[in-house]
Amino acid sequence: MRDELAPLLGPDGVLEHPAQRRTYAADGLAALREVPPLVLLPSSTEEAAACVRACRRHGVPFVPRGAGSGLSGGAMPHPDGVLIGVARLRRILDVDLANGRMTVEPGVTNREISAAVEGHDRYYAPDPSSQIVCTIGGNVAENSGGVHCLKYGFTTNHVLALELITAEGEVEWLGAPTADSVGYDLRGLIVGSEGTLGLVTKVVVRLLRTPESVRTLVADFTTPRDAGDAVTAITASGIVPAGLEMLDHLAIQACEEDTGVGLNRDAGAVLLVELDGPEAEVDREFEAVQACCREAGATAITIARDAADRARIWKGRKAAFAAMGRLAPDYFVQDGVIPRTALGDVLERIADLSSEAGYRVANVFHAGDGNLHPLVLYDGTRPGEAEEAEKVAARIVELCVDAGGSITGEHGVGADKACSMPAMFGEEDLAVFERVRRALDPDGLANPDKVLPTPRLCGESPGPYRPHPLEEAGLAERL
Amino acid sequence: MRDELAPLLGPDGVLEHPAQRRTYAADGLAALREVPPLVLLPSSTEEAAACVRACRRHGVPFVPRGAGSGLSGGAMPHPDGVLIGVARLRRILDVDLANGRMTVEPGVTNREISAAVEGHDRYYAPDPSSQIVCTIGGNVAENSGGVHCLKYGFTTNHVLALELITAEGEVEWLGAPTADSVGYDLRGLIVGSEGTLGLVTKVVVRLLRTPESVRTLVADFTTPRDAGDAVTAITASGIVPAGLEMLDHLAIQACEEDTGVGLNRDAGAVLLVELDGPEAEVDREFEAVQACCREAGATAITIARDAADRARIWKGRKAAFAAMGRLAPDYFVQDGVIPRTALGDVLERIADLSSEAGYRVANVFHAGDGNLHPLVLYDGTRPGEAEEAEKVAARIVELCVDAGGSITGEHGVGADKACSMPAMFGEEDLAVFERVRRALDPDGLANPDKVLPTPRLCGESPGPYRPHPLEEAGLAERL
Repeated sequence: MRDELAPLLGPDGVLEHPAQRRTYAADGLAALREVPPLVLLPSSTEEAAACVRACRRHGVPFVPRGAGSGLSGGAMPHPDGVLIGVARLRRILDVDLANGRMTVEPGVTNREISAAVEGHDRYYAPDPSSQIVCTIGGNVAENSGGVHCLKYGFTTNHVLALELITAEGEVEWLGAPTADSVGYDLRGLIVGSEGTLGLVTKVVVRLLRTPESVRTLVADFTTPRDAGDAVTAITASGIVPAGLEMLDHLAIQACEEDTGVGLNRDAGAVLLVELDGPEAEVDREFEAVQACCREAGATAITIARDAADRARIWKGRKAAFAAMGRLAPDYFVQDGVIPRTALGDVLERIADLSSEAGYRVANVFHAGDGNLHPLVLYDGTRPGEAEEAEKVAARIVELCVDAGGSITGEHGVGADKACSMPAMFGEEDLAVFERVRRALDPDGLANPDKVLPTPRLCGESPGPYRPHPLEEAGLAERL
Repeated sequence: MRDELAPLLGPDGVLEHPAQRRTYAADGLAALREVPPLVLLPSSTEEAAACVRACRRHGVPFVPRGAGSGLSGGAMPHPDGVLIGVARLRRILDVDLANGRMTVEPGVTNREISAAVEGHDRYYAPDPSSQIVCTIGGNVAENSGGVHCLKYGFTTNHVLALELITAEGEVEWLGAPTADSVGYDLRGLIVGSEGTLGLVTKVVVRLLRTPESVRTLVADFTTPRDAGDAVTAITASGIVPAGLEMLDHLAIQACEEDTGVGLNRDAGAVLLVELDGPEAEVDREFEAVQACCREAGATAITIARDAADRARIWKGRKAAFAAMGRLAPDYFVQDGVIPRTALGDVLERIADLSSEAGYRVANVFHAGDGNLHPLVLYDGTRPGEAEEAEKVAARIVELCVDAGGSITGEHGVGADKACSMPAMFGEEDLAVFERVRRALDPDGLANPDKVLPTPRLCGESPGPYRPHPLEEAGLAERL
């Protein structure tokens, strides 16, 4: 397989040296590691299709990978498969300002899309915290959100069409750049499918008008419950903030230690609220938001004076995960979703769980969506701590499901949560997922062992997904 | 099958008499007729599941039907199958104002959803013209839009979750009432699948806040091209109207004849523009919209003074199809989509086509979406006219595809356009659709011969969809 593809992809397109391959051993979920036997970096749809066809001919699994910033192990390599990276598929192919859309290759970063139309009064709305590095291909795979998805929705609401190489190596265009799609919405099926239904090679995104006015504030509260009350009041008043984020006391300490952006270290929780839209509307709603915060018991409200102030506030928020290194050597980040109305209760139960188990839990989350990111802190060098912390994290997710929520908001299922899927879905549901997967990937070669539970990954009880057919056969001759 | 189900469904749930069955022979596309051998009207999920399971056991196809107001023959009965109507599944099961959602059975009409929360400052956004009669089940099947989908999106953007009876008779919940869905977005796959992937028995819809302010105007123009220029100017200015509709000269005559709402019969085209949102924003943008219309050559602008005025204007627009009876005994309505920027050109080519063929074509459409509804007028009592008019309609759709658009905006593929699918999709694409269909309906019993081309429907060239296995076997013993 290597010998077939090397002449086509060239020396930059086939990475074989162990040091090169080790770079790709894990994504943002560093705990799950596997050095890929071979890394392919196609630089065109044709090359990518050739890679996928070669995989099919040889019965070799393939794992698509964007920037590798995902947090659920979705891009963890397969021990007997190839990794197909999109690092050389980075071109912006078309910018259509009149119709408000752009066509890009999957390796273009999230931030580069908006940067390409800067000065033209347009931008791309979804903005995951990792937007400087993460790729649109990865965003499509994970249906990424971001701090502004409360108002503007997830990636699926902003991807009009995409070019997919099916697991059988066929090149298909799905979706349409016009209103409603014809036939089944396969575009929507691919978005969020975490690379298990094929490899995306082109993406048509929707561009929005830059809002006329943006206003941002930080409100300090004594307790997360007070901050939660403010969230309830704001949403109940009919205001849909562009961003509505909460950090608890521990998260504030980490962010301040790391970025020094000026959050109040004494606060029990802070709320970051951003409004955008026409100036008159924003001004009026901004007053209403402040009133909601004060009534819920805000001890202080700091208003961003300008774009630089605003950028500093978001820098603090977006650095939250990285900043946890200041508090503990390691952490597990969770990604549960709860009904917004259950916010206060769930936070208190997480606090109880944390003190019972003796592990600190910092909470950073998209409050408006009810999308929690609790970070369980631990020290991996102390025996048993990683296992214990992981159990605390798993119990937090169970808590979310019990409260009527779900096991993942925006980080995806990947390898991390595939074994938890039976907690949310019955056997029949999983069988339907499995059959849909087989419809697009009959041989089970596209990112196997991800999203759906498999015996290889989850041990006991044979899951509905069978391992790829040649798992037992000799690897060397196939790669 | 009848004998099995009669005790469970009761006398109101099984319709056998020819006069009763004839009522269900066609949907809104009256040209396609087939009297169903048996009509089933289950009144609960359990009864509906029993119907589908009986179909499966006996190898009998089933066709789901809402109000039958669809325009693409999606609910046309199968000659050897049963029709499953949702007329007795009409309960509102849960209203959750705090989280902005409602759970309803599929027979609840679109209008009843908003009516149920009237006075609570909430409403359901998608509003097809048929909203007084059409059901949410039908809306889900067709991914219906409406005059306000330009700003608020289609049904798929407002359905959070749904209960589906798979073609194998299993009851599944798809989607989640929280942020992002976990696993594949099968909810999104079902929305718009036109009853070919199972029978929907419960729908969780999203409720929006009633906008603070609504303003509506009618602008008269000399030509459709001028009106098209106004549409381009409005959207280019960054304004997203809640509704942006165009009627051409012939459509104006029909609407006025029928409703007398006060449209200018001398105008070459009128534009209906509605803005909604916060009062300050709406006021400012309303000024800008008027300026765009004047610059594009509007000869008059009439502003709705109050809710009654507004209701009258929309009544005129929504009556457009029915009003065509004033101009001609029969019409074919088309449902093409074009890039918004191609609007002026496509309208001129339709006019050329109309005069060449000698058939009048009235145009009513969602201008902001580029979703055209040309109505080809004819007299079915004159030999050959229906066939000729249908050809003109088909050529209009080809025109849309040539202009970079698609064969259906919001009316669906149904039986009407299944044979036109190869005009938009290659064999490989259709094969993927087909495999996805088989994943959810292995026996091919859910609304066969719809959406994808089949030999039975399309004649020559064997389509990828095989007829249901027992098509040849004796009907009587199965029903």
